[in-house]
Amino acid sequence: MNDAPSRSHGRVSVTASRRPSELMGERPVLKDAWHARVVTLFPDVFPGVLGASLTGRALQEGVWQLHPVDLRPFGEGRHRNVDDTPAGGGAGMVLRADVVDRALRHAMRGAPMDRAAWPIVYLSPRGKPFDQATARRWSAARGLTMLCGRFEGVDQRVLDEWEIEEVSLGDFVLTGGEIAAQAMIDATVRLLPGVLGNEASTEEESFARGLLEAPHYTRPATWNRRDIPAVLTSGHHGRVAAWRHSEAERLTRERRPDLWAAYLANKGDDDA
Amino acid sequence: MNDAPSRSHGRVSVTASRRPSELMGERPVLKDAWHARVVTLFPDVFPGVLGASLTGRALQEGVWQLHPVDLRPFGEGRHRNVDDTPAGGGAGMVLRADVVDRALRHAMRGAPMDRAAWPIVYLSPRGKPFDQATARRWSAARGLTMLCGRFEGVDQRVLDEWEIEEVSLGDFVLTGGEIAAQAMIDATVRLLPGVLGNEASTEEESFARGLLEAPHYTRPATWNRRDIPAVLTSGHHGRVAAWRHSEAERLTRERRPDLWAAYLANKGDDDA
Repeated sequence: MNDAPSRSHGRVSVTASRRPSELMGERPVLKDAWHARVVTLFPDVFPGVLGASLTGRALQEGVWQLHPVDLRPFGEGRHRNVDDTPAGGGAGMVLRADVVDRALRHAMRGAPMDRAAWPIVYLSPRGKPFDQATARRWSAARGLTMLCGRFEGVDQRVLDEWEIEEVSLGDFVLTGGEIAAQAMIDATVRLLPGVLGNEASTEEESFARGLLEAPHYTRPATWNRRDIPAVLTSGHHGRVAAWRHSEAERLTRERRPDLWAAYLANKGDDDA
Repeated sequence: MNDAPSRSHGRVSVTASRRPSELMGERPVLKDAWHARVVTLFPDVFPGVLGASLTGRALQEGVWQLHPVDLRPFGEGRHRNVDDTPAGGGAGMVLRADVVDRALRHAMRGAPMDRAAWPIVYLSPRGKPFDQATARRWSAARGLTMLCGRFEGVDQRVLDEWEIEEVSLGDFVLTGGEIAAQAMIDATVRLLPGVLGNEASTEEESFARGLLEAPHYTRPATWNRRDIPAVLTSGHHGRVAAWRHSEAERLTRERRPDLWAAYLANKGDDDA
């Protein structure tokens, strides 16, 4: 098997020079870290946005670890070709099954083959739409391996062989899977214990309730002849909560008939 | 108005040192370039993935231009505070209307105020879901300005004042709007003339038809005891097309009942 170099980000990259005693210390995160391994033709675009802000701090602290795996060295021949023309004709190029297979074998070293403990994901508009429930499920795993497509697609046989979960970021077409990978990793990592501070709570709750969030306001009390709604500065917690709930219902009804229908159905079940 | 420095990527960053004659040359793209201006607390994460591959090449060639606008210098007081606690209480912090307003005034300099020619977008899970039709609409504009949220949200008054379009990447929660911005810019830029080569066609078509794509295969003909479906190597174009269509229907029916229902409804209309 081709032993391509894989780059590492976060604390794992320096463990070799750390003393074992440190690994036993106050924050034994290395063994427990959540792992994201990403097979891609563009390893240099990682960590990208994930290296900033809360996800970046968690990466530094070893709460999670990121391993981009360059697909190119697993290619065929002197030019390390990774793709070929589609069988049956048509536009674009298809990633080869044998090439992707070699890269996945490399990326899965030491990982559990139980898909619940370690999902293998292909990012594709053909997949199941990614949602908050998927992020929660993945955050409960030990890690995951993602395959980023480019070109037309990837040979179906390697998807079948590895029983790969196809997931889509949404009903739009991207140049490649790298941004989708970063979005899904971000949504997953922020659910890991210790990543978010007290910023967590409400937005999570509002997704759990199945409603969009009510509008937000902050100082100054009057801006550009526009006032903060009086109820929010009334100091009456019950009225604030009631106003927010009714605004959340209004926005959901106006903007997301699909969520609104699901919310009404659930509400009916609760009332029954 | 605070005149914060904005960073530039792509050919626009070097125009000052170019001779006017060059601007009149074979590729007068500077004036016609599509513009993405992104108000963010993390300007350094741009261009990120957008600097690679096809979008990166188009950025270099001046087909589009990217201007991250750092929100921080528009903040209040010595510490340039950009946020404050939510009116009515609750977790998280809210971006201030006055601060965001100053950043938007800066970001909109020289841009048309007609929202069809230049949308202003706030990236938020409360927004309308981003889709291929939105990408098409934006790619027909001269450019757009995006506001990336962090914390709990942004003061509703500045969204109302600027008549900002709220758009969501999907039903999941991200740490901030930066990855969503990159995803939407990628989906939009790849629709600009000259960005894609002949890789374009089919995937676009398959989205237009409302069906997921059929499986792809390429060489080798047999891999790991798995063969390419015989029809694809038959050389019979009609049978290949029929197989692909039936597979596309099967996958859509199995994976996306929502798209399948819409497809059947459209089909009924066409038949009528």
